[in-house]
Amino acid sequence: MSELTAARVYEAYDALMSGDLAKAEQYWDPAVRFLTPGHHPYAGWHEGLEAFVAFINKVHEVSGGTFAMDPVTVLVNDVDGYSVDVNRTYATRGHASSDSTSPFDRLEIEGLHLLKWENGRVVEGRGAIFGDGTTAFNMWWSPVNPDGTRTVV
Amino acid sequence: MSELTAARVYEAYDALMSGDLAKAEQYWDPAVRFLTPGHHPYAGWHEGLEAFVAFINKVHEVSGGTFAMDPVTVLVNDVDGYSVDVNRTYATRGHASSDSTSPFDRLEIEGLHLLKWENGRVVEGRGAIFGDGTTAFNMWWSPVNPDGTRTVV
Amino acid sequence: MSELTAARVYEAYDALMSGDLAKAEQYWDPAVRFLTPGHHPYAGWHEGLEAFVAFINKVHEVSGGTFAMDPVTVLVNDVDGYSVDVNRTYATRGHASSDSTSPFDRLEIEGLHLLKWENGRVVEGRGAIFGDGTTAFNMWWSPVNPDGTRTVV
Amino acid sequence: MSELTAARVYEAYDALMSGDLAKAEQYWDPAVRFLTPGHHPYAGWHEGLEAFVAFINKVHEVSGGTFAMDPVTVLVNDVDGYSVDVNRTYATRGHASSDSTSPFDRLEIEGLHLLKWENGRVVEGRGAIFGDGTTAFNMWWSPVNPDGTRTVV
Repeated sequence: MSELTAARVYEAYDALMSGDLAKAEQYWDPAVRFLTPGHHPYAGWHEGLEAFVAFINKVHEVSGGTFAMDPVTVLVNDVDGYSVDVNRTYATRGHASSDSTSPFDRLEIEGLHLLKWENGRVVEGRGAIFGDGTTAFNMWWSPVNPDGTRTVV
Repeated sequence: MSELTAARVYEAYDALMSGDLAKAEQYWDPAVRFLTPGHHPYAGWHEGLEAFVAFINKVHEVSGGTFAMDPVTVLVNDVDGYSVDVNRTYATRGHASSDSTSPFDRLEIEGLHLLKWENGRVVEGRGAIFGDGTTAFNMWWSPVNPDGTRTVV
Repeated sequence: MSELTAARVYEAYDALMSGDLAKAEQYWDPAVRFLTPGHHPYAGWHEGLEAFVAFINKVHEVSGGTFAMDPVTVLVNDVDGYSVDVNRTYATRGHASSDSTSPFDRLEIEGLHLLKWENGRVVEGRGAIFGDGTTAFNMWWSPVNPDGTRTVV
Repeated sequence: MSELTAARVYEAYDALMSGDLAKAEQYWDPAVRFLTPGHHPYAGWHEGLEAFVAFINKVHEVSGGTFAMDPVTVLVNDVDGYSVDVNRTYATRGHASSDSTSPFDRLEIEGLHLLKWENGRVVEGRGAIFGDGTTAFNMWWSPVNPDGTRTVV
């Protein structure tokens, strides 16, 4: 079994984003569950790798491909089997004007994922956001636009 | 055209709840729009009587028929064409234990609807909630259960 | 005892804003309590006319005098002893740039007050806000600035 | 300069909680700033060790000494100079009934602190909370009680 290192954490995300499920399963347990923070339409536990990947695809769909994560740092505890990746995240809703600053359109947050590893693969992950970013996240993910009209996702 | 009175406001809700669309259209303009407060999956403007009725049906579906509104008072301004109905609202999520007190399961709020009337029919409505009820409403409507698991509606 | 009319509701607010307590007490019971919506530092029941006036003064202080309410309509129910005044409210935090659009600096909401009248005076009032305005209100009233620094009020 | 290890992170918290400022300053820079998540009265950046300690004291005061943190794990990245401590946190407002389950009284969250270390001391810290815990935190820290009355802190 591979040692848990920062490099392996980055590899896990690369595999997840590759769209190659067989590759992803080298790092993510098929039964992995992921807790998205907040109380918006996609908050809560996503159960299983397939549901987690569907959520990630939804992020890209509703952001019109603008979703971007800039890595800040990665921490590991190989004894307990945990990793944390800290990131700055940016996205604009796909239907919104690219220069909108409304929190219903534009997301600018800094947060992290805590991943639990067993037998070389992630079995559980949870996200959390610094500052008042969870409120921003709830607004961005909601169906509500700045003028109160709805864009259901 | 009928005068705007408290009695007429009660009749409008009775017609809306009757499930008889022809009857509802005597009080609600087919193009009526309704603004549900908050930033949860059903927040924002519901456009048209059909969408508004679909939202009301959703309320009854997700509450397993427990949704209840106790009227407190009705106010009208016939000159400006506005009514306000104040209500206490109770509901428990259909999948939840009937004695759960978690805000993700149980809703107990007091709020109101401001309706704009034109030519004897409602053309626009907006809801608002007293106290910290909008936060409670956001939690209740969210897919999140008390343990963080999801029940998508 | 005076009849409850829209004109009397406007007079009550004029008396309240006059700074003349004796005048205010002609319309507001000394034991009046007022429920400010949300969960921010000034949310909850303000007990007594003195505490309510102190809250209003705080609004003007933290907004650097920019707080403004544009009346939309007033409704009354003289039988039950209720009035509702609907308003559009604008304010910018006193320490903020006047052109800031951050919800931590700039407040633009539409809401209302429901007042309960007894013996010609208001004995209880409660505010409520349309759309996602309660979240905006929570952010505006918080000590948090757009960059996360604090300005305690 | 000491190597950044999990043991040193635990020592830093022990020193902080000891009430011995000279001891705390062996681990925490006097200019340390700490970002408390959310938009409640104590959210935002607390600037300087003295302000940070005052915030911690406030936590114990408003919780009537019930505040408790159970450690889950600690992760470090000695190259980048970061640590993360994951904790389960429990508290009941000091004025509340000890068996209250209202989120305005009782706090049960799981979250973490990301600490930035320079020259063997923490220069910056930020908290973040999993699930919908930030909403729970905003409610718990607010002056609002379950019945809407206020207890200012």
